[in-house]
Formats: sequence, structure tokens, C-alpha cells
Amino acid sequence: MSAATRKLLVDVHTHVYLPRYASLLRSRSAAPRILSRPTADGAGTEERLVILDNEPSGGRPVGPQYWDRDEKIKFMDKHGIDVSIVSTANPWLDFLPAAEAPSLAEALNADLDAYCATAPALSPALSRLYAFGLLPLVPAVPVPALLAAVAHIASLPRLRGVIMGTRGRGAGLDDPALEPVWAALARAGLVVFLHPHYGVPSSEWGDRENGHVLPLALGFPFETTIATTRLILAGVLDRHPSLRLLLAHAGGALPQLSARLASCVAHDPAVAQRLAHDARWYLGQLYFDAVAYGREELAFVAECVGRADSYEKGADRRTQSAQRTLGSSRLLFGTDHPFFPPLAETDKWQSVTENLEAIDGVEGWSDAEREGVRGGNAARLFGLV
Amino acid sequence: MSAATRKLLVDVHTHVYLPRYASLLRSRSAAPRILSRPTADGAGTEERLVILDNEPSGGRPVGPQYWDRDEKIKFMDKHGIDVSIVSTANPWLDFLPAAEAPSLAEALNADLDAYCATAPALSPALSRLYAFGLLPLVPAVPVPALLAAVAHIASLPRLRGVIMGTRGRGAGLDDPALEPVWAALARAGLVVFLHPHYGVPSSEWGDRENGHVLPLALGFPFETTIATTRLILAGVLDRHPSLRLLLAHAGGALPQLSARLASCVAHDPAVAQRLAHDARWYLGQLYFDAVAYGREELAFVAECVGRADSYEKGADRRTQSAQRTLGSSRLLFGTDHPFFPPLAETDKWQSVTENLEAIDGVEGWSDAEREGVRGGNAARLFGLV
Repeated sequence: MSAATRKLLVDVHTHVYLPRYASLLRSRSAAPRILSRPTADGAGTEERLVILDNEPSGGRPVGPQYWDRDEKIKFMDKHGIDVSIVSTANPWLDFLPAAEAPSLAEALNADLDAYCATAPALSPALSRLYAFGLLPLVPAVPVPALLAAVAHIASLPRLRGVIMGTRGRGAGLDDPALEPVWAALARAGLVVFLHPHYGVPSSEWGDRENGHVLPLALGFPFETTIATTRLILAGVLDRHPSLRLLLAHAGGALPQLSARLASCVAHDPAVAQRLAHDARWYLGQLYFDAVAYGREELAFVAECVGRADSYEKGADRRTQSAQRTLGSSRLLFGTDHPFFPPLAETDKWQSVTENLEAIDGVEGWSDAEREGVRGGNAARLFGLV
Repeated sequence: MSAATRKLLVDVHTHVYLPRYASLLRSRSAAPRILSRPTADGAGTEERLVILDNEPSGGRPVGPQYWDRDEKIKFMDKHGIDVSIVSTANPWLDFLPAAEAPSLAEALNADLDAYCATAPALSPALSRLYAFGLLPLVPAVPVPALLAAVAHIASLPRLRGVIMGTRGRGAGLDDPALEPVWAALARAGLVVFLHPHYGVPSSEWGDRENGHVLPLALGFPFETTIATTRLILAGVLDRHPSLRLLLAHAGGALPQLSARLASCVAHDPAVAQRLAHDARWYLGQLYFDAVAYGREELAFVAECVGRADSYEKGADRRTQSAQRTLGSSRLLFGTDHPFFPPLAETDKWQSVTENLEAIDGVEGWSDAEREGVRGGNAARLFGLV
């Protein structure tokens, strides 16, 4: 790795709604949609993004931060971010009929490549923007259409992965029909960014007015945790060892629940016999964005990754004093831009400063580990050199 | 604290179905119930516990471990457990009509006190068994009936707390109607053991056969996390600072999601203005059983507790090198007996050995911290001296 790439700050969790996608959302009358309404002072109109039915507060403000590339670059410059791996924000194409999703995925993937290719570059070999493409993962879509999308994405030079939700073709990501898709993604070396959208049913949140807090703070990470666990239990990581899976929001609750998961599997012989390893082993196969807002959280995720090898079937539990440094290689800085904007336009974004402070603050990491999480790990994972 | 109590091993998470309760379950034809069926070899009958509708595998085996006190003592002796704070297992009285729940709670609480009082003692001042009582927390129960149950439990010498699920009177634990109940529990010094039962809707688990793994490994901790977060957001911990709340399974996912929770609250001003402190502060007000199956997990929970004071409103973030030792004072050993039995009757229980190994293995704890988590913290919390 060259000195230049070692110092890069790379944002792997940063979203866009490209103009073609925003137009689609504006054309809709049900969530997900972008609607126009009078501003509170009555002096004009504002656009609101409504991504879930019955969303509190009539959705959230939406604007050029979501679709204007200059705004993305301005945000990056303000925070010293060298490279962003952008991804379409949820809910992607989940709401489209099978007849429309493949062609729109193809058009949006070409848009994404152009969005990246025509931006100012850091050097002839290094763009400022790369992207995760979209698969037309909707109910009843033919698997060959998914494989064609993987092949198209793999052919686009700035697309280095795919982002996806957790529903797959409607039966979740542990749907056996997706086996050839995992195989194709692994073969193409595309990083799969697993991102939540649905949370858990809103009945769980009760009647009190808590804005977006419960679905975002708990529902999102629960969904990622469930989807990843179902992938593990279905043997997908056993069958596709080269699949590179990046989990949003530092893996949600999976690290903290992975030992409990291992215990529950051990007490359920039918499940245990199906898996090649203790459940904790699989965390060492995963990548985690560092969108966790705390140094204790990052240190803990790194420890769960670092201990994973000692849970390989038949392994001796080795001494683990180095596990926090070992595990840092699977963590990658992210911001979740343009969600969670600051209250004043001139402010730095708290989601950026808190996540950078967390990386700086982990006890026991050397500068090399911090630089890895800030960008070196992403440079390797996404082939930025 | 005397040397004798400092060395105690105290199990704060250990369940019973007293004979009166088991009889009730046998009399029922819908979950929760105990049913009798022929054994697999056809040579006899076996009892099965079905606690949720549509439970996989026709429920789980149930037997004297659940109701026979000699079995509890044998389990304790086998694993060197000096004292157990027993609690009725889920789903408690949740399924009863409001007309029946209060009188059954009263009878079961008296049974529990007798179950503890007539057991062999360690000394004239120290029993081997104490208990969490039951409140008749069911829809439409009058609040005075709940307050009467609190008063009755407080009058029973071996009852040192209450165990409860997350539904309250049907509207969750953030139901404003429960305010006087929290006040009465805090005033009586009773420890509230918050325990899951329902998980999240089973639609989240998909179609694959995974036994009990997903609802137990993920659903249970999610439920505890949601309920505790809703209590925090409703201001219950602000209004009742002396309420002693003990979370099952080391708080589920709350520690790992507490920084994300704080970030989501900070971006939702209506919620933020309602709370007295940053969301992370509240973790320092809680107690956590040490049923987490890993030393990294225990260390992380202790760090989240230890850092909590630095998130008091207006506090400076102090240096936090001691936070892992500070936080250990809120962790308490538990086993979840008689759930997760070993495959062979002569084996030690993995849920015991793993949780003890985890306590022994936390880096940075002195013997004093380990002995605190093994029993000293429980001796203080439950007034065992």
C-alpha cells in the first residue's frame, strides 16, 4: 500500500438519490415518495422524503444533498473526506414490479458510473467517487435478471459492489433461490453492502411519540442483525467463503449477540450440525462500517472480529491480547450522509465528527490501525490503488 | 461487606415454575401450557412446555428441574452456587384475565416466600434462596391491585424484587398508568428484573427451520432492548432515580446500540428536550445480569456503564481508563437455569461454566471486580448481609 493511499479518508456509507431516482419518487403517491408541501411559514414549498408508510412528522426534509454531486463533494471537502463509495439510499428498487426493476437498475447503475467518472479525480488512477450498484431484488424477478445485473455492475469501472436490503425476492436473503447470486457476487469480487430499511413491525414501538428514534436507533440495527444471522444459519457464508459482506451500522446488534447466538445454536443440535463453525467464527468473515458513534463500540466490534478465528471448528482458544488490533482490519469509516444533518448549515456534521473521534479514541490501536479504519482498509477492499 | 459474603457465588437469573403454577399450565389447552405426550420410543409419556403459539419442535421438555426445590439445590451444589434469587419463568401471569391475576399473584408470592424460607440456610442470617415476586400485570387490572401486590411482596422477607415482562397492562412499560407502580417499587427498594418473553413478531424469522435459535438468540434481547429504551425515552428513569432495574441477558442489545440511540435522540429535538441526559447516561443507572456468554461482552457492558457518568448533562468527558472496573459493579452473575440443559445429565451446565469463564476472563478486572460480579454486587443489591 502506498503512502498516498495509507492516509486516505474513505467514506463507505454515504447515500445518494440520483436525479432519475428522485424523479421516480416524485411521481409516486405512496411511500416511498417525495412530496411537495407548503413550508411552515407559508412562504414557499418544501420537498419531504417519506420512505415508510405512517412515517412520523410527515417524513423528513429532502434536497440537493441527496442528488446534487456538487453537494456531495462540498460535504466531502468540508470534512476532509478524500473518497466516497456512494450508494443509493433505501428502499432502493424494493417497491417496483418485477417487470420494471431490471431496466431501472440497469439505467441507475449506468448513471452511478457516470456520476463517479465525471467527478474531479485525485489522480489519474484514483477517483473521488466510486459506487455500490443496485440489483433488481424484488419479488418474482427471474434469477437470470439478477445475474445479468451483477455482470453489468462488474463491467462498470467505478462500481465496486452492490447495496441491498434484507427482503431479497420477498423471502429474505436466506432464500435458496439466491444461491447463484451469492456465487456470482463472490466471483465478481463485488462487495455486498447490507443495509436496513424496514426495521421490525411498528407495533413494537408503542403509542408514545418518539419521532424517528425507535425505528432508526433500534429497528434498523435489528433488521441487519436478523438478516445476517439468517445468512449465517442458512450456510451462505460456509458455501461462499470469498463473499465480501459489509454490514451497515457496525453490524447492528450482531457483535453483542454473537456469543448468545453461539450458545443457542449449541443447544439446538439440528442447527449446530448444519454449520461448519461456532457462530462467533463468522464475524471474522464480515466487514463492518464504523458508523457506531463510540470508541467503546468500535473496540468491541474489533474484538469480536479478532476473536473469531479461535472459534473455528476444532481450534484451540488462543490467547487473545492482540484481538482488538487484528479485528480493526474489518472496520471501515462511514458517515451515513446525507441523513442526520446538523441543525445549522455551517456546522460540521456530528455523524462525521463523532465517528472520527471514535476511531481516534479506541484504546490499544496504533496509528496504523486508525489509518486502516479511516481509509486503508477500504482502499484494499474496494481496490482503490 | 464481610469476607464471607465477598466470596459468595449468587445466581440472580434462575427460574422456577412452582407446583401451583405448573398445575395451572397443565390445565390449559392453549399456550402457555404443559402438555403430556407419548415419548418418541412409545414406551411412556413425557411432559412438554409450550410457551408460545406455533412453537417449533412441539415445545421443550419440562420436568422436576422446573418445580422441585431439591433439583434447584442439587444444581446449585453441583456448580458451587451459594445463593439463588429465583424468579417465575415467562410468561408469568400475562395470559390471565384481570379478575384472576391478583389473587394468583398473591398465592404464588406466598408460595415463593415459603419455597425460600423452608430451604436449608447458609447461616441464621443468610438463606440459600431468595426470590423475585410476581405482579398481576395484565390488561385492565386496576392500578390499586398492582400497588397492593407491591406492598404484599415488600412484606415477605425472602422476596427482594419483582420479575416482569414488557407488556405491562397491555400498552408496554412506558404506559403512564404505571407511574405509581414505579414509584411504589422504588420506595420499597424492590429490584425490578425485566425479562423478555414475546421477542419480535415471528414474521421476521423467515421460512427456514432454525428451531428456537432466532427467537431466543435475537428476539429475546431485542424485546428487552426495546422495553428499556421506551422506559428511558418516557422519562421513567428521570422521574424515579432510585428505581433499581435489572436487565436480563446483559441488557440485550442496549449497550451496543446506546451510542446510536444517543445520536438519534440528538437529531430529534422534541425527544432530546424531554430527557434530562444523553441516552448513554441511563446505562449507569441500570443493573445487568452477566448472562452474556463471553468475556468481551461483559467487558463491553462494564465499559458502557463505566462511561455513563461522562454523559450526564453538562459533564465534561473525563478520561476513562478506569471505566471497565467502575462498570463491573452493575453486573451480576446468572445462569438462566433450568433452560439450556446439558445433553448428558452428568455434565456441568454450559450456561454456568461459560458465564463463569467469562467473568474470570475479562481483561483488566482485579479479583475484587470478579468477586463483585460473582456475588458481592448481588449481596449488596439484594441486601443479603
